[in-house]
Amino acid sequence: MATNSVNASIITIGDELLIGQTIDTNSAFIAQELNKIGVWVRRRVAVGDDFNEIWQTLDEESQDSQIIIITGGLGPTADDITKPLLCKYFGGKLVVDDNVLNHVKYLFEKIYRRPGPILERNLKQAEVPDNCIVLHNARGSAPGMWFKSPPAERKAPLNPPQGGTNQVFISLPGVPHEMKGIMTNEVIPRLLSEFELPAIVHRTAFTAGVGESMIAELLIDFEAKLPSHIKLAYLPNYGMVKLRLTSHGNSKEEVEKELLPYFEELQVLVKEYLVTNEDEGLEVVIGRILKAQNKTMGTAESCTGGYIAQLITSVAGSSAYFNGSVVSYANEVKENVLGVQHETLMSMGAVSEETVIEMVKGAIQTLNVDYALATSGIMGPDGGSDEKPVGTVWIAAGSREKIKTIKLNLRFDRQRNISMTASNALNFLRKFIIAASNGA
Amino acid sequence: MATNSVNASIITIGDELLIGQTIDTNSAFIAQELNKIGVWVRRRVAVGDDFNEIWQTLDEESQDSQIIIITGGLGPTADDITKPLLCKYFGGKLVVDDNVLNHVKYLFEKIYRRPGPILERNLKQAEVPDNCIVLHNARGSAPGMWFKSPPAERKAPLNPPQGGTNQVFISLPGVPHEMKGIMTNEVIPRLLSEFELPAIVHRTAFTAGVGESMIAELLIDFEAKLPSHIKLAYLPNYGMVKLRLTSHGNSKEEVEKELLPYFEELQVLVKEYLVTNEDEGLEVVIGRILKAQNKTMGTAESCTGGYIAQLITSVAGSSAYFNGSVVSYANEVKENVLGVQHETLMSMGAVSEETVIEMVKGAIQTLNVDYALATSGIMGPDGGSDEKPVGTVWIAAGSREKIKTIKLNLRFDRQRNISMTASNALNFLRKFIIAASNGA
Repeated sequence: MATNSVNASIITIGDELLIGQTIDTNSAFIAQELNKIGVWVRRRVAVGDDFNEIWQTLDEESQDSQIIIITGGLGPTADDITKPLLCKYFGGKLVVDDNVLNHVKYLFEKIYRRPGPILERNLKQAEVPDNCIVLHNARGSAPGMWFKSPPAERKAPLNPPQGGTNQVFISLPGVPHEMKGIMTNEVIPRLLSEFELPAIVHRTAFTAGVGESMIAELLIDFEAKLPSHIKLAYLPNYGMVKLRLTSHGNSKEEVEKELLPYFEELQVLVKEYLVTNEDEGLEVVIGRILKAQNKTMGTAESCTGGYIAQLITSVAGSSAYFNGSVVSYANEVKENVLGVQHETLMSMGAVSEETVIEMVKGAIQTLNVDYALATSGIMGPDGGSDEKPVGTVWIAAGSREKIKTIKLNLRFDRQRNISMTASNALNFLRKFIIAASNGA
Repeated sequence: MATNSVNASIITIGDELLIGQTIDTNSAFIAQELNKIGVWVRRRVAVGDDFNEIWQTLDEESQDSQIIIITGGLGPTADDITKPLLCKYFGGKLVVDDNVLNHVKYLFEKIYRRPGPILERNLKQAEVPDNCIVLHNARGSAPGMWFKSPPAERKAPLNPPQGGTNQVFISLPGVPHEMKGIMTNEVIPRLLSEFELPAIVHRTAFTAGVGESMIAELLIDFEAKLPSHIKLAYLPNYGMVKLRLTSHGNSKEEVEKELLPYFEELQVLVKEYLVTNEDEGLEVVIGRILKAQNKTMGTAESCTGGYIAQLITSVAGSSAYFNGSVVSYANEVKENVLGVQHETLMSMGAVSEETVIEMVKGAIQTLNVDYALATSGIMGPDGGSDEKPVGTVWIAAGSREKIKTIKLNLRFDRQRNISMTASNALNFLRKFIIAASNGA
């Protein structure tokens, strides 16, 4: 990234991040939001609930970053040490903020409706350092904090800030939905007004059904001729590869205009495998196609156990095209609800082409849908045989007119097999729907 | 953590981590595995695909950590710069490793079955620095690398290593299942033989149905009397709070023995809200109860859209007790498959106590199960009304003899509402099953 951009560091605090008990989703959200407004995240650092480590990390990150965002350690319990630490780091003292106090009282009395008096530890959340700007936390009792001045005793950052302002340090609670609320409503608007930010533009094309190195072969000449300020990144994930072009400049319009012909050429080069030219999942792509065609779908899931249904229903508004699913984990349910023949299950087995075909037929009828998707496979670690090892999966996609099937031979662990089956199945359905609507 | 432990840093490489396009799950896995063998992860750092940033981070992390694990940037495309960088950092040169070359050929010819000759860029994955130990990657073509000697031109680490050995730098591919394979089969056994490691022991109790601050009130005296080397952490997550006690010492047995009475006291103090004394999800707890009772369950899901079913089937061996689910997103499916009365839906609405009761009855019959769980609610962002705002959820749990219901008033975003509904519903079912088997 160019040196004239505004740099940020994200510091996440909590032992749970260092022992792997919690997966850090906060950093990804914060990075996305910063990126949208043209702030480049240089580094993300996770440290434990340890005074010296946090202090040292603040010192280090403030050498090269103009914006330092800290999450975690603001809760009401003894392992939450961020607030007293920041108070000391910035040379302030804790004072009660009346607005926060009223908000805490409101939350506990009107929203949480806890019986009895508010606990001292909760009231203490209204104490804030007297040299910070308080960021309102509409969703919880721990406020965010915005510190504008670097501490007097520290030397100035090595790289002087670019954006016409000093450094800012922002502390946010670690509870994801509280952090998101403050980030969106308080932090982003303030950053936009305090910094002169460059425009960063990403364009993402999403391919499926081919590996990273085959895609890279198609793009050798394209990559070679890209100007140095435009970057191409490959992001492989479960049988799909995202291709991301990134550029930056003074105005979003200019950058977008410069990037467009490259992005269009990229799409042509990978067109055989292209799923979408937006940064979005297959479940969103399928939803858009179905809505445009005013068609409905449903799933009959054995090995995926509802995973495909929950992906589809994670999209707001999916009730317009998704009728439902029969998760037929037991053979009995395949027979009784989907009408799979007992004979088929006995002679061919639950993991067979014949079974998924009957599952699709049953789903179309039972759920009364235009398109259905069925899965049956052995996800492991147990249940495999020589003939059908762990990772054997049958998928069928169909309409009232036609049914197509595909077999996968996966390997490795259960969770990956489930995710791989789901993304392969959704891509298979997508192609089926497109072919069907083209009369193929 | 005590100063006599062996410290590690995890460095993850990739622009996708800094713009928030990918959530970092690798670090959590690596941290878990290190923790199990008594290695304390001091810091996790994510940096972009930038030569200088990676170099600087290697320098910084090697000042205080004996073990430095690097993931990402080993793929076959141009944005993958880790291998040449490490080669230069350790002063080696790239040479072809015959074992890796044969493995790459085997993968492409026998496993991936790609048509045509193997690409030059894939063959290049067999090149490794001549001063590293190659770690076999059974699941992919990019090998892991183990560097034992710190580069000659750098000064020794500030804190001399404790474990009777030098520092190690380990580079692993960023593809999660490849990284996991190398970590488990190569890295952990080598670390165990190279370092004298202390024992770290965690014990986790898992509560539901009460907030972090209420739990903290119950534990004030307990926390105050904990010896300083035993730490208590609060990990709140979707209406549940995990309470983790951590200690360390010379032998695992000793540490476990010392920790046990504290952990037992903790469980007694929170017993009203205790779900399990293992670090495991509700779906595992319910599976264990059902298996012990030789009973079956199923779900009838509207607003959760299959999310509960996929949680339950994420557990290996769940087919022993989980028959299936009817995801009845459309009212038509509630009527046709679950037998919910048209009249009920018209007069009370899909989100109502009456509807979830009929859904449970229908699920018990249709799926032929001992216990069923039903959900219906408004997840947002659309679909709310004054009478039933976004976040209104009805849950029912039942057997052939009895049905119980509960109403939730959630707020905020769709994905959180789905997760909150799922964990509340699973806890409600857990309590229902326990009460039912006690004859209540």
